[in-house]
Amino acid sequence: MNVADLGLPVDVPSTALFTDQYEFTMLQAALHSGTAERRSVFEVFTRRLPGGRRYGVVAGTGRVLDAVENFRFDEGVLRFLRDAGIVDERTLDWLAGYRFSGDIWGYPEGEVYFPGSPILRVEGSFAECVLLETVILSVLNHDSAIAAAASRMSAAAGGRRLIEMGARRTHELSAVAAARAAYVGGFDSTSDLAAGFRYAIPTVGTSAHAFTLLHDSERGAFQAQVDSLGRGTTLLVDTYDVTEAVRTAVEIAGPELGAVRIDSGDLLLVAHRVRRQLDELGAVDTRIVVTSDLDEYAIASLAAAPVDAYGVGTQLVTGSGHPTCSMVYKLVARARSADPGAPLEPVAKKSLGAKTSIGGRKWAARRLDEHGVAEAEVVGIGEVPAELADRQLLVRLVEGGEVVGREPLDAARDRHIAARSALPMSAIQLSRGEPVLPTEYV
Amino acid sequence: MNVADLGLPVDVPSTALFTDQYEFTMLQAALHSGTAERRSVFEVFTRRLPGGRRYGVVAGTGRVLDAVENFRFDEGVLRFLRDAGIVDERTLDWLAGYRFSGDIWGYPEGEVYFPGSPILRVEGSFAECVLLETVILSVLNHDSAIAAAASRMSAAAGGRRLIEMGARRTHELSAVAAARAAYVGGFDSTSDLAAGFRYAIPTVGTSAHAFTLLHDSERGAFQAQVDSLGRGTTLLVDTYDVTEAVRTAVEIAGPELGAVRIDSGDLLLVAHRVRRQLDELGAVDTRIVVTSDLDEYAIASLAAAPVDAYGVGTQLVTGSGHPTCSMVYKLVARARSADPGAPLEPVAKKSLGAKTSIGGRKWAARRLDEHGVAEAEVVGIGEVPAELADRQLLVRLVEGGEVVGREPLDAARDRHIAARSALPMSAIQLSRGEPVLPTEYV
Repeated sequence: MNVADLGLPVDVPSTALFTDQYEFTMLQAALHSGTAERRSVFEVFTRRLPGGRRYGVVAGTGRVLDAVENFRFDEGVLRFLRDAGIVDERTLDWLAGYRFSGDIWGYPEGEVYFPGSPILRVEGSFAECVLLETVILSVLNHDSAIAAAASRMSAAAGGRRLIEMGARRTHELSAVAAARAAYVGGFDSTSDLAAGFRYAIPTVGTSAHAFTLLHDSERGAFQAQVDSLGRGTTLLVDTYDVTEAVRTAVEIAGPELGAVRIDSGDLLLVAHRVRRQLDELGAVDTRIVVTSDLDEYAIASLAAAPVDAYGVGTQLVTGSGHPTCSMVYKLVARARSADPGAPLEPVAKKSLGAKTSIGGRKWAARRLDEHGVAEAEVVGIGEVPAELADRQLLVRLVEGGEVVGREPLDAARDRHIAARSALPMSAIQLSRGEPVLPTEYV
Repeated sequence: MNVADLGLPVDVPSTALFTDQYEFTMLQAALHSGTAERRSVFEVFTRRLPGGRRYGVVAGTGRVLDAVENFRFDEGVLRFLRDAGIVDERTLDWLAGYRFSGDIWGYPEGEVYFPGSPILRVEGSFAECVLLETVILSVLNHDSAIAAAASRMSAAAGGRRLIEMGARRTHELSAVAAARAAYVGGFDSTSDLAAGFRYAIPTVGTSAHAFTLLHDSERGAFQAQVDSLGRGTTLLVDTYDVTEAVRTAVEIAGPELGAVRIDSGDLLLVAHRVRRQLDELGAVDTRIVVTSDLDEYAIASLAAAPVDAYGVGTQLVTGSGHPTCSMVYKLVARARSADPGAPLEPVAKKSLGAKTSIGGRKWAARRLDEHGVAEAEVVGIGEVPAELADRQLLVRLVEGGEVVGREPLDAARDRHIAARSALPMSAIQLSRGEPVLPTEYV
C-alpha cells in the first residue's frame, strides 16, 4: 500500500480500524473453529477508581454509539487488511458485510460509577462483539477520565463558571472529545471551536498576550480590541503591569468592560487587588477571569477570592493526574454452541494476580437510604430483587443493531449533576479516600 | 446550525477549527486595527522538562506539516463561524482565502530538545501565524510526550522488541498518533490497525483471554488458533494455569511455536519458569512476550529475565506520568508596520511569575566536546558563531507556504536513535535529574 495515496490528513469515515489487530485474528480463528457465532456477553467495568477518587463519571456513551454505527468496512479498509496480510479471504468476506446486530445496554452518560459497575454490556455473536473492544474502551477510558476531573473541578467551583481551554495540551481530536466530556462533567463552555462545531458546546475567547505584544502599546491593543469586539469583551491585563493595565482597560471601555483576565502570578492576591481597583474605578460589574495552571485544588483555594470564572487547560484535558480510566472489556458469558437457543454460561479468567473478574451477565442498581441518599452500588446476576427494580442503572442503548439511546448532550450534563447530588456529601471531598459507595455483589 | 446535519462521526477534512476561539477574535481585531499584516515570528519552546527527565524528544513534526497544509476554510466551517457569531464578515472573507504563505523552521522530527530549544519557528504575517497556535501545540505537545516516554522505554529495553498496545487507554485518534510517536521513539510495532493503515507502522497481535474463554477448553482454543494462524503464532498462556498452558501449547504447536504471552502475575518469576519449561520441552526458539502494566522501570527491572519482547499500553500512551509537554507558542518578534521592509523587533511578556520568555528570532546549535559528545544546547539571536555553523539544529520545513520538510517516518526514528546516542551516557538514566545538556544563551 502506498501511504501517500491516502491523502493527508487521512479522514476516517469508518471506525473499524480503531482496533487492535488481535481482534481480527481472533475473529479469523473463531470463524475457522466454528465458535464465531456463539452468543456472547461482554461487559465494560473497572476494578478500581484512580488515586483516591470517590466516584467515576461515565462519559463518551454518545460517542460509543457513533463509533458502533460507523464500524463498517469499506474497500480501502478491506484492501489494507488484505495487503497487510492481517486476515484471510474468508474473514475479509465476513467483514465486508459487518454491521453490529446485537444489543448494548449501559449506564447512561453522565451517571456516576464505582469499581465493578457494569458500565456497558454488549451482547451478540462473539464475532460481532469482540471487534468492538478497542474502540469502545478508547472512547470510554478517555472521555470518562476527563469527565471525572471536570466533575471535581465543577464541585470545587461552586456555581462559578468554568471554561475548558486545554486544546493545545492534548491531541487535536482528543481535545474535541475532552471539551465534550468536560461539558458533561459540569463545565460551561470551551475555547475549542471544533467542539462548538461538532457538539454545539458554547465557545468563548478573546485575546492572548501576542495581541498586546503585536501592537505598539498596551493601550493601542486594548483600544483595537474594544473597537472591534465591543466593550463587553475580556481584556488580558497581565502582559506588563497589571494595575496600569486595569486602569487603561477601564479608561478605554468604561464600566461596561465585560471582564479582565489574569493569566499569571499569585491569583489569589492579584484577584483581590484587581477587584478593589475595578470597584474603585466604578467597574463594579466587570468580571474577573483567572486562567493559570488551575486544577480542582487551585480552584478550591480561590473560593474566597473575587473570581467570576475559571479557565482550565492542562489539568483538565489530562484528567488531573489520571488521564485514563482502567476500564476493561471482558467476555463474561457465552453459549457452548452456535445454536440460538443455547444457554449462556458464565466465564472468567482465573488470574495469577489482581486481574480478577466475575463471570455472568450482570444488572446493577443503586440502593438509597431512607433519606433518598445513595448508600450502595448493587451488582448482581439473575433476577433483580423487587425492591431494586426501579433503581436499575443500565438502559438500552442499541437494540438489534439499531441505536436507540441517543440523547442531547445537555441531558447527560443534567444527569451528572443529579447523580452527583444524590451521593453522600463526602463524594465531593477533594482529598483521597475510598469510593463513596461500596459495591455489593448479590 | 443543526448538528445532526454534520453526520456521525464528523470527519474533519480541514484542520482550521482545531483552534481556540481567541485566535479568530485576535485576527478580527488586528484586521480592524491594521496590525494583522505586520511581519511576525512565533516560536515554540518549553520552559522545563517534566519530572526530572533528562531530555525531550521532538515528535509530531510531520503531522504539523499535514495540519498546516490542511488549514483551510470550506463552506461548512465558514458557515459555522458566521452562525455562531465568532467573527465579522470582513474576517470571514479574509479566512475564505486563507492559505499559510510563510516559512516554518524547526528541529527535525526525532531530534532531542531541552528547555529553551526553539523547537519550531513560524514566520509570516501576524494574521496567518497566530491562527496556527493551537493545532501546532496540540500536535507537538501530545506527540512529543509519547515519544519521550517511548524513548525511555526503548533505552530500558536494550535491543529487545517493543510493541505499542495502548489504543484502548486513550482517545481513538490519539492512539494513532501515539503509535506513530512511539515508533519515532524507538518502538518496533503497534497493535493499532489504524496506525498501520495511516502510517504503515508494522502491526502485530494474535489473541486475548476472551478467545480462550470462548472455547470449551484451553486446548480447544489453542488448537483453533494454531490451525488458523499457524505454528508461528503467539499463544496467551495465563488464562488458567500457566504451566499447563505452556505444556498444551507446545504439544499442539510443537517446537515451532512462535511465542507465548504472559499478561499477569510476577513477570520476572513467571518468565524464568516459562523459559525453563519451554527449553525442557524443546521449544528453545519459542519467544516470551510480556504485557502487563509495563513502564520503563518495569522494563528495566526485567533486563535479566528471559523476555524477548515487551508490549506496553497505558504507561506509553499517557506519557509515563507526563501525558503532555509544556510547549508554548509565543510571539518573539514583529515589525512595527505592515511595510514588508520594516525591521523585526523582539517582543516579550514581562511576567508576574514564572512565565518568562526571551524575545527575538532565535537559532540553535548543539556544541560537541572533543570526543564528539554533545555538551551544550546553544540558543542565540543574530549571527551564528562560525564554530557552530555546521551544528545548527533548525531545518526548513515550510518555504513560502510550501511544505519542503516531509520525510519518511523511519528517517525520524533513525534520527532519534542517533541524536540520543550523541548525548552523554547519563541521558538514559531513568532516575530523576537535571537536563543532560545545559542551555546556553548567546
